[in-house]
Amino acid sequence: MPGYSPHTFKALSFHDATPRFADGTDTPRAYLERCLETIAEREPVVRAWVVMNEAGAREAADASTARWKAGKPLSAIDGLPIGIKDLLETRDMPTQMGCDAYRGNFPVRDNAGVWALREAGAVVLGKTVTTELGGTHPGPTTNPFNPSHTPGGSSSGSAAVVAARMVPAAIGTQVGGSIIRPASYCGNVALKPTQGAINRGERQATSMSTHGVHAGCIEDMWQVAIEVARRAGGDPGRLGLFGPMAPPPARRPLTLAVMETEGWPALDSDSRTAFEQVVEQLRSQGMTVLRRSDHHLLESFERAIDGAQALANAVTGWENHWSIRNLVAQKPEGVSARTKAVLKAAERMTPEDYRARLMQREEVRRRHEALAPLVDALIAPASPGPAPVWTGETPGQPPAGRPTGDSVFNSPSSILGAPAVTTPLTAVRGLPMGIQLVGQPHTDAGITAIARWMMETVERVVV
Amino acid sequence: MPGYSPHTFKALSFHDATPRFADGTDTPRAYLERCLETIAEREPVVRAWVVMNEAGAREAADASTARWKAGKPLSAIDGLPIGIKDLLETRDMPTQMGCDAYRGNFPVRDNAGVWALREAGAVVLGKTVTTELGGTHPGPTTNPFNPSHTPGGSSSGSAAVVAARMVPAAIGTQVGGSIIRPASYCGNVALKPTQGAINRGERQATSMSTHGVHAGCIEDMWQVAIEVARRAGGDPGRLGLFGPMAPPPARRPLTLAVMETEGWPALDSDSRTAFEQVVEQLRSQGMTVLRRSDHHLLESFERAIDGAQALANAVTGWENHWSIRNLVAQKPEGVSARTKAVLKAAERMTPEDYRARLMQREEVRRRHEALAPLVDALIAPASPGPAPVWTGETPGQPPAGRPTGDSVFNSPSSILGAPAVTTPLTAVRGLPMGIQLVGQPHTDAGITAIARWMMETVERVVV
Repeated sequence: MPGYSPHTFKALSFHDATPRFADGTDTPRAYLERCLETIAEREPVVRAWVVMNEAGAREAADASTARWKAGKPLSAIDGLPIGIKDLLETRDMPTQMGCDAYRGNFPVRDNAGVWALREAGAVVLGKTVTTELGGTHPGPTTNPFNPSHTPGGSSSGSAAVVAARMVPAAIGTQVGGSIIRPASYCGNVALKPTQGAINRGERQATSMSTHGVHAGCIEDMWQVAIEVARRAGGDPGRLGLFGPMAPPPARRPLTLAVMETEGWPALDSDSRTAFEQVVEQLRSQGMTVLRRSDHHLLESFERAIDGAQALANAVTGWENHWSIRNLVAQKPEGVSARTKAVLKAAERMTPEDYRARLMQREEVRRRHEALAPLVDALIAPASPGPAPVWTGETPGQPPAGRPTGDSVFNSPSSILGAPAVTTPLTAVRGLPMGIQLVGQPHTDAGITAIARWMMETVERVVV
Repeated sequence: MPGYSPHTFKALSFHDATPRFADGTDTPRAYLERCLETIAEREPVVRAWVVMNEAGAREAADASTARWKAGKPLSAIDGLPIGIKDLLETRDMPTQMGCDAYRGNFPVRDNAGVWALREAGAVVLGKTVTTELGGTHPGPTTNPFNPSHTPGGSSSGSAAVVAARMVPAAIGTQVGGSIIRPASYCGNVALKPTQGAINRGERQATSMSTHGVHAGCIEDMWQVAIEVARRAGGDPGRLGLFGPMAPPPARRPLTLAVMETEGWPALDSDSRTAFEQVVEQLRSQGMTVLRRSDHHLLESFERAIDGAQALANAVTGWENHWSIRNLVAQKPEGVSARTKAVLKAAERMTPEDYRARLMQREEVRRRHEALAPLVDALIAPASPGPAPVWTGETPGQPPAGRPTGDSVFNSPSSILGAPAVTTPLTAVRGLPMGIQLVGQPHTDAGITAIARWMMETVERVVV
């Protein structure tokens, strides 16, 4: 395992391959077979897949091959092999949610987004490991750049299959920091869209979870997101994802502002150095990068998001506790001690407590809205450093609190319902660390365009 | 079957009985047994229950009896026998949703509201008939006042069990007109709360459905609603039901406005006469009752809600079609032709169409908001007349379009996310017809107070 260098690591891309599908020098089936070879090689250590439907994938890839040959692909992602986080239902594979109580659960239904992917011709290859029920209890996945480190969570498998070059893209979900943090740890680009922008189908239980995309490049990330949204729309009552049907062209921003979050003091010095070097590069390009002390609205915003992590945990804990309580009542031995502790905390809340948290969340959103005329986007580390060490539970010890890392830099965008895109611009101590952009709700395409500009312009930083 | 007269019909009440529980001259168990006797007598014709857990109910009633004896009831509805619409999950009974494809479905889970009812000491007696998946395909239930007429739908059983005096209250759900219309046809009072005010638990797929309460009196209606909301809160991300822990006292409004809706021309002349006589009584009490021609904002509102029924059907059709498509794919023979036709219509829509409908809905809501300073509430017939005849399908004929009646007077409050309360103030041709109040979002307690005042003040009208 050589460790990670942003100078030498070449992520898998799909959009690069499609011109060869059109001219017949490559095919979606051959692309899939290369993915399967990589999986055969890497999976024994990375352990990112729960289950795969190889036969179904080969059939879908053959059908895609025929469409490209006929000059009639269903979309720009026709033939793209993709992993689906094992929280989303798939009609051809079980949905076990990383939870023993759901072992063998096989509802034979397609989540709206999975249906949309199939309609667009994507090759749904398999289900990727999630932490238990999308919470903190980890699965077996290791970081593709160093197996003694976590890939992050809860979208552990989705981040890792992209980082290991097993597939060009994967669907993840985020309710606290579950897309952006693992993408940071695994060197992916990733989109956590505006709340409600991508239809979650059967997964509507929480008010600040989103389905999003892990990918090796901005082009694939956006294309997958927009092809899903074009077909499945947004959540019930939501306007869905806004943006062009092709990846938005790179756009240079005028003004960014650093979002420190309550995680700032915990940022280790290497990671802070890496982040500041990115900021310096942006400034040297003539861009304004504001700090919290530069404007009272930024300072006011930072004060409002102090406590965002506890707020996010409380809101989500309450929203999830109805189903988790039923699950524990049915199969007490099938749910981890970690998840039971989260349930217990939620059961100490009342509807009044929950209402108070929602009003607090609303206030934070107002402070964010106030920044709209001031900055194009916020910029921040996507995690408090690179992936921490995680080699499994220590027998006889109580369960560790954060086996998949700390969501402190991700809770704000979840609380805000705001889109976030992370880019693998830095490496710290031989592992990737992402730099994220956070925009106003519905500016998903806008921050993607800025992210693309940064990917094309900013020199990679290695600390 | 004697037909219905508001002068002689005496609805079942629970709050009237509790003083005798406290002094020991009656018990929740005896109350339940009286309900079971009525069920034994009426159910063969009314056919409102899908399944009952009599043993569980007796056990719960005994526990409640002990609590009242000890002077420690869990709530004001401790011991209240209640029916649950068979769309909501219950841990002790199957959840079959009026749909063959769900026959035998038994997830052994409690919906958040059902859990809250049990926590409040209510006696969950059984599951009440719903139209298939809450749509238009009817179940076997007949109108308790005339079995050749429909009880309305989709909450057919919940409306009928209250009207037949089998239980004092039942939980219904409304996405178009599924609480208020059947309550109108069955002479209940009923609350369709503000969108999101009562936690729907696992049922979050649609953006304008609500869980609400059918009851024999305002006191029980409010008490059930607030006891559920106090424990289960609102939907994820919603502030929940606002109002006092006891039924709000009667309040005389200053100004009401008649809401005509697009159903006005279809209102038959008896029903219109009945409604106008209620309006006349209100005016004779010195109250201002505005008509659409009295104010341009009312006229503008009426124009905006013209088309509300088609808008409601399109929005809900789209939101439901993800799960219905999966269901039809799994068990094509288990879904009715009516529901398949709704699916087909939804599949002709695109996410862009859906987005346009949502923006249209937003515009209607703005026009309603504009009425807030003008009127205390809107008043309208709760249905376009009394329950129509429905004696089942005609063999060899295509399925009738509206076997459970027309939701044209109910779509507006659903579209608006606004609370509605219906009161059984009139009788038309020997069947009840409700008069509804519609308020601004979160004025549930306010319109309940007005409804109570009307129940106490308005002389019943018989046409």
